Amino acid sequence: MDALAELVEALPAGVVVTDPVRTEKYRWDRSQDPGAGTPVAVVRAEDAGQVQTAVRWAARHGVPVVPRGAGTGLSGGASAVDGGIVLSLERMRAVEVDPFSQVAVVEPGALNAEVKAAAAEHGLWYPPDPSSYEICSIGGNVATNAGGLCCVKYGVTTDYVLGLDVVLADGTLVTLGGTRIKDVAGLSLLKLFVGSEGTLGVVTRAVMRLVPAQVVGATLVAAFPTMTAAAEAVVAIRRTLRPSMLELMDRPSIRAVEQHRSMGLDTTAGALLVAQSDAPGSACTAEVASMQAACEAAGASDVLVTDDLEEGELFVRARRMVIPAVEELGELMLEDVGVPVPRLPELVAAVADISARHDLLIPVVAHAGDGNTHPLVVVPRGDDAARVRALEAFEEIMRVAISLDGTITGEHGVGRTKKAALPEQLGEDVMALTRRVKDALDPAGILNPGAVL
Amino acid sequence: MDALAELVEALPAGVVVTDPVRTEKYRWDRSQDPGAGTPVAVVRAEDAGQVQTAVRWAARHGVPVVPRGAGTGLSGGASAVDGGIVLSLERMRAVEVDPFSQVAVVEPGALNAEVKAAAAEHGLWYPPDPSSYEICSIGGNVATNAGGLCCVKYGVTTDYVLGLDVVLADGTLVTLGGTRIKDVAGLSLLKLFVGSEGTLGVVTRAVMRLVPAQVVGATLVAAFPTMTAAAEAVVAIRRTLRPSMLELMDRPSIRAVEQHRSMGLDTTAGALLVAQSDAPGSACTAEVASMQAACEAAGASDVLVTDDLEEGELFVRARRMVIPAVEELGELMLEDVGVPVPRLPELVAAVADISARHDLLIPVVAHAGDGNTHPLVVVPRGDDAARVRALEAFEEIMRVAISLDGTITGEHGVGRTKKAALPEQLGEDVMALTRRVKDALDPAGILNPGAVL
Repeated sequence: MDALAELVEALPAGVVVTDPVRTEKYRWDRSQDPGAGTPVAVVRAEDAGQVQTAVRWAARHGVPVVPRGAGTGLSGGASAVDGGIVLSLERMRAVEVDPFSQVAVVEPGALNAEVKAAAAEHGLWYPPDPSSYEICSIGGNVATNAGGLCCVKYGVTTDYVLGLDVVLADGTLVTLGGTRIKDVAGLSLLKLFVGSEGTLGVVTRAVMRLVPAQVVGATLVAAFPTMTAAAEAVVAIRRTLRPSMLELMDRPSIRAVEQHRSMGLDTTAGALLVAQSDAPGSACTAEVASMQAACEAAGASDVLVTDDLEEGELFVRARRMVIPAVEELGELMLEDVGVPVPRLPELVAAVADISARHDLLIPVVAHAGDGNTHPLVVVPRGDDAARVRALEAFEEIMRVAISLDGTITGEHGVGRTKKAALPEQLGEDVMALTRRVKDALDPAGILNPGAVL
Repeated sequence: MDALAELVEALPAGVVVTDPVRTEKYRWDRSQDPGAGTPVAVVRAEDAGQVQTAVRWAARHGVPVVPRGAGTGLSGGASAVDGGIVLSLERMRAVEVDPFSQVAVVEPGALNAEVKAAAAEHGLWYPPDPSSYEICSIGGNVATNAGGLCCVKYGVTTDYVLGLDVVLADGTLVTLGGTRIKDVAGLSLLKLFVGSEGTLGVVTRAVMRLVPAQVVGATLVAAFPTMTAAAEAVVAIRRTLRPSMLELMDRPSIRAVEQHRSMGLDTTAGALLVAQSDAPGSACTAEVASMQAACEAAGASDVLVTDDLEEGELFVRARRMVIPAVEELGELMLEDVGVPVPRLPELVAAVADISARHDLLIPVVAHAGDGNTHPLVVVPRGDDAARVRALEAFEEIMRVAISLDGTITGEHGVGRTKKAALPEQLGEDVMALTRRVKDALDPAGILNPGAVL
């Protein structure tokens, strides 16, 4: 019996998919990594036991395993590997909320939005909110330590992970953490798996902390003549405040959104800042007034403040729409660079310079309050010369971020598309340390080979 | 030249202390671990370079290195090892605040209170607040992932660590993270070092996140007939609220404090709950009113609410005083067990039962809002029979916590005094995983040998 037949036999009918027509869509995540390989099979696991069976089989035969959630990753972390299996968690979607412990016990394929909805039924809230929250999975969120719009006040995924079940490279299932809030017994292995992009183990269950639901009191939208002026406003706001949202869109982003779906945004503005406050009562009014003053001092041409939730949500939706809207303009090379907040004006200026020098459209949208930006390098379809320039621009933007004490990725992960730049950020010694940890946990290197390292 | 002479020669005069009279006090931390050994020398490093020199020397000669901050640890994590060196960071105390990036760049010997004070000069706040914050060091806080009273709303040390410089077991200095807020480039090595109790590396510099200073609006103090009733109130409060403090003291704790320093506490109460709200304006009033209603529904005999900061601080000081006050009653075997919040009533009932069964005084003080409790097993000085019973009680309390889905340590660390119970909590597979990580980072096992593992 060949190895693949052994796998098919070991799992219930329908779990192992080998039909190339059906496996095709499992080759790529949303980054459309051109280097994605062709898997020998896709394992659509239904429970942790099946994940163990698949990983044990892979370990025995030295077959690469690429874990996959909803496939919405933006760095090629879930690109298939030639000759490997894709281990899809999309069918493991249970969500159970314990309102007394204020946790959600979640299978990895459950969508972020499903966790939020389940929490909301109990007056609770799961904060992390990638723009893709309606289509991305919790497993992927844990794998990348995903962020989002609320992080400026509420932190990122790792801040909400209390427990994980993880299948290790040899098929062992370990339980780390649990439903207790504070726990320092032993090494922080739990946190090591968060953000490990499937290179250390496969998460089969996560215990996510929930918090009491918050109410957004007001939304502020400010138009600025330039992106730099808007970034200066962000720096000033963050000096004293911690609003519940602080986002930026530059003019090309605004225009892409308007072109995608007319929302009445001011397409003559150089940048739009979208901020929200969920401070209660008069504290909200005070926070928004402070933000308005900071915007005006930084040169905002127009500031709208509304306590109408619907109206505010319209601008947030526009903000979330930027990536899909820009995707219509061509192929995207999606950046995720971050810098310390005070360096934000320098970063956006540098990106504008790179855009001009390479004659490329690079709309910038940003979780500005955290210094995390998404320059979206656009390659007009079929324009090979532009693709060459875009690759250069992509590298340059990462290099600029590093030079500003920043990072090549704030929330999307390194995956395969940013891997080449990682050593420049981390340095040789940290890369060596990383490899030692990877080798200790996955000595045969079967877990997501080619990602991160 | 013998090895020790080589070390003395490699470092500036005064850095290496070998005089047994002077090294004596470096043998113990505050847990007074009876198994503490005798070091061959204490290295009182002045900078990261000297730490590297000492660790390189130790690696060359296979000498154990016990890193040490302020020596206020409560689990024997800094107990000296026979034939080893104690690597004291007490002289590395610089604190530099960058108000624009909202970070404090801190040397490990700086006290938690010094970081708070430096932040306050800029209207900023470093939240984590172990009861010992006036005397414990940031290095120790990072090593144990320390908690405190504010954690119920503001999280623990790891939530504030943005960057670390760490000297590895071979003397290499690596920089992890930095002043950027979001960063997912590479594995979460940063978080792995937090809480590693000196077993993976020696922290020589930490970048700690600061947040805008908050103002406590009101303090609530409720007296309950029993500790169980108070714990039920905590469960009810945490079901919907996230106050900025939610602490419990039982009757023996109250009495110990009153005996230590008369503060006018109600010594007839079965338990006192001390809560604070820093919600702004009317939200504070509403939060406190909800807490008051929850306390009354759970049977509180007396509820005091005050917006007088001084008056509120008096009760918080009383709460912080419990451990030193109980220390006057005998030797302490200090627990740090935690459970999911809804299991808190069961835990306190079980501790009361253990106290009665073993005829031991075990005052309980708790960061109740996080389910983290400190049963303080008291051994009357010179009472050897009681010490035997206390050891049994100490083990039993940990076992009960584990059986309630809890942890043997919520914030103090495993160190040496809780090490025997760790495998029971983590299980064999997680212990094996832990050892693999330890071996990958410290193959010769020179870093804090005997702690945790």
